[in-house]
Amino acid sequence: MSGHFLFLLLDLVGTFVFAISGAVAAKQRKLDLFGILTISFVVACGGGIVRDVCIGALPPAGLANWRYLAAAIAAALATISAYPQVRRLRNPVLFFDAIGLGLFAVSGSQKALAYGHNAEVAILLGVLTAVGGGAVRDVLLARVPVILQREIYASAALIGAGIQVACEQLGMAQPWTPWAATFVCVGLRLMSLHFQWHIPTFSDHNAGKTSSDQ
Amino acid sequence: MSGHFLFLLLDLVGTFVFAISGAVAAKQRKLDLFGILTISFVVACGGGIVRDVCIGALPPAGLANWRYLAAAIAAALATISAYPQVRRLRNPVLFFDAIGLGLFAVSGSQKALAYGHNAEVAILLGVLTAVGGGAVRDVLLARVPVILQREIYASAALIGAGIQVACEQLGMAQPWTPWAATFVCVGLRLMSLHFQWHIPTFSDHNAGKTSSDQ
Amino acid sequence: MSGHFLFLLLDLVGTFVFAISGAVAAKQRKLDLFGILTISFVVACGGGIVRDVCIGALPPAGLANWRYLAAAIAAALATISAYPQVRRLRNPVLFFDAIGLGLFAVSGSQKALAYGHNAEVAILLGVLTAVGGGAVRDVLLARVPVILQREIYASAALIGAGIQVACEQLGMAQPWTPWAATFVCVGLRLMSLHFQWHIPTFSDHNAGKTSSDQ
Repeated sequence: MSGHFLFLLLDLVGTFVFAISGAVAAKQRKLDLFGILTISFVVACGGGIVRDVCIGALPPAGLANWRYLAAAIAAALATISAYPQVRRLRNPVLFFDAIGLGLFAVSGSQKALAYGHNAEVAILLGVLTAVGGGAVRDVLLARVPVILQREIYASAALIGAGIQVACEQLGMAQPWTPWAATFVCVGLRLMSLHFQWHIPTFSDHNAGKTSSDQ
Repeated sequence: MSGHFLFLLLDLVGTFVFAISGAVAAKQRKLDLFGILTISFVVACGGGIVRDVCIGALPPAGLANWRYLAAAIAAALATISAYPQVRRLRNPVLFFDAIGLGLFAVSGSQKALAYGHNAEVAILLGVLTAVGGGAVRDVLLARVPVILQREIYASAALIGAGIQVACEQLGMAQPWTPWAATFVCVGLRLMSLHFQWHIPTFSDHNAGKTSSDQ
Repeated sequence: MSGHFLFLLLDLVGTFVFAISGAVAAKQRKLDLFGILTISFVVACGGGIVRDVCIGALPPAGLANWRYLAAAIAAALATISAYPQVRRLRNPVLFFDAIGLGLFAVSGSQKALAYGHNAEVAILLGVLTAVGGGAVRDVLLARVPVILQREIYASAALIGAGIQVACEQLGMAQPWTPWAATFVCVGLRLMSLHFQWHIPTFSDHNAGKTSSDQ
């Protein structure tokens, strides 16, 4: 019961912040009110709907549970009315996207485990839920997809989902485990944005050769 | 029985006109015959397939019922052979997209209700079915997505789906209700294109500030 | 049993080569290691996940069966370490994409038949599985989608899936039938790339008129 409430809370907060990132991006493209609401809802609930379809939780909570729609609409309206304040953040889309990334990585893997799937399904669906919202937002709005940017992104979601699943599978999960896993993921992502951290890649030792790629 | 037939008719006409919009857009991009057929089918049936997956109607009608494939192929072939006539419309993609928007908003919400889902699921799936086809078409063909254009789009689908669901839930549905709801949605969309109507938005009173957004 | 093993083999080889095409495309965009792994997995398993969702095979094999994840990761790592060799191919993305196209067209239609669906569902899901991976790759990486290129693409997948389904439905399937169907599809696609074959289209006899299209 408490676990279920915790999951719902994580998922709704993730919906709220992803909806903010969608609303800011839609507002920057000068969409009208219903366009902003539509983009906010699709971005905030799209990842969770894909997750629910994959684990057979039909109809998807994002469609059937009014709280998700209410969270997305509230976030979009709050963003519109507080837009001058939101804009003072250096890059509000990336900031709220980072928080949503962490929350959805953890809540997505939690829900897959709760439906009886194995650790691999749980981690993969955590990452896909977290990465999906931002990818849909950027494709719909013709922005450079966050997944193409060079900082740590998918790997932060992987680490967040991995911590959560490992703790649950090893019987070490505490009430604060999801928050800790979310904190690690969001922290990694924000620090990689701030310090322009890159993952050491195999491409580095080919740097001279690859620079001539198309 | 009559209701079922009416739903199938609405859905097939929607498939036909969305397939025309896909075929015109694919032809403008100079795709070959099978490319045009593929785009037409994906655009016409993609939204309905997502809807059927979300309500658990498997396999999706767009794949299992040959009438949808036949309607999409017939629309694509008709578009190709009557292309000089179709081109005389000022913007054939937007024109047929508007009709498909109305038909899919209404038939999508009808099918969700028929599968026993609540009003919220029905309205949301009506809007997503209606908006999905055009969004997929524009993303695949790298056009400016219709959802980004400033006229009334998602809100017209919302009003169409809302009228249909309200009438059915309140027991006021008549045989002509779906056509009336479709007519309102298509009319709103076409008039907003013609008169360049915009929804009053919260952004208007920030116009001076937002004009400097990226 | 043998048929099941054959299907798994086709599907895993298809996953491997699509993951290579995704890894090459992601590396050309200079993504980091986890970005490359994510794109490789999404491209390689995205089409199969959509197919499994449509035929009700939940959770999708691409998420639940570790072999798919392992094949995608192995392909991505092999691509990164042998990148100088891979680059010597004139267009490695299109080359591996063609092989994946044939393998997924055949394995996708096989799996739909194995789940008891009719010939139409099997052929359509074969084509969508085959076309989906490349379309997702190109949309995520903002490349010109392969489906827009003028050579034979969707039609090659249709012929491959059609041969496989026809042989199975007519009771003529041999152990080597899937390989023959794959070979025909891949051969058609590669030859159309090499010789710049085009399908005769209805647009040809309108060439003078359509050249003024937007």
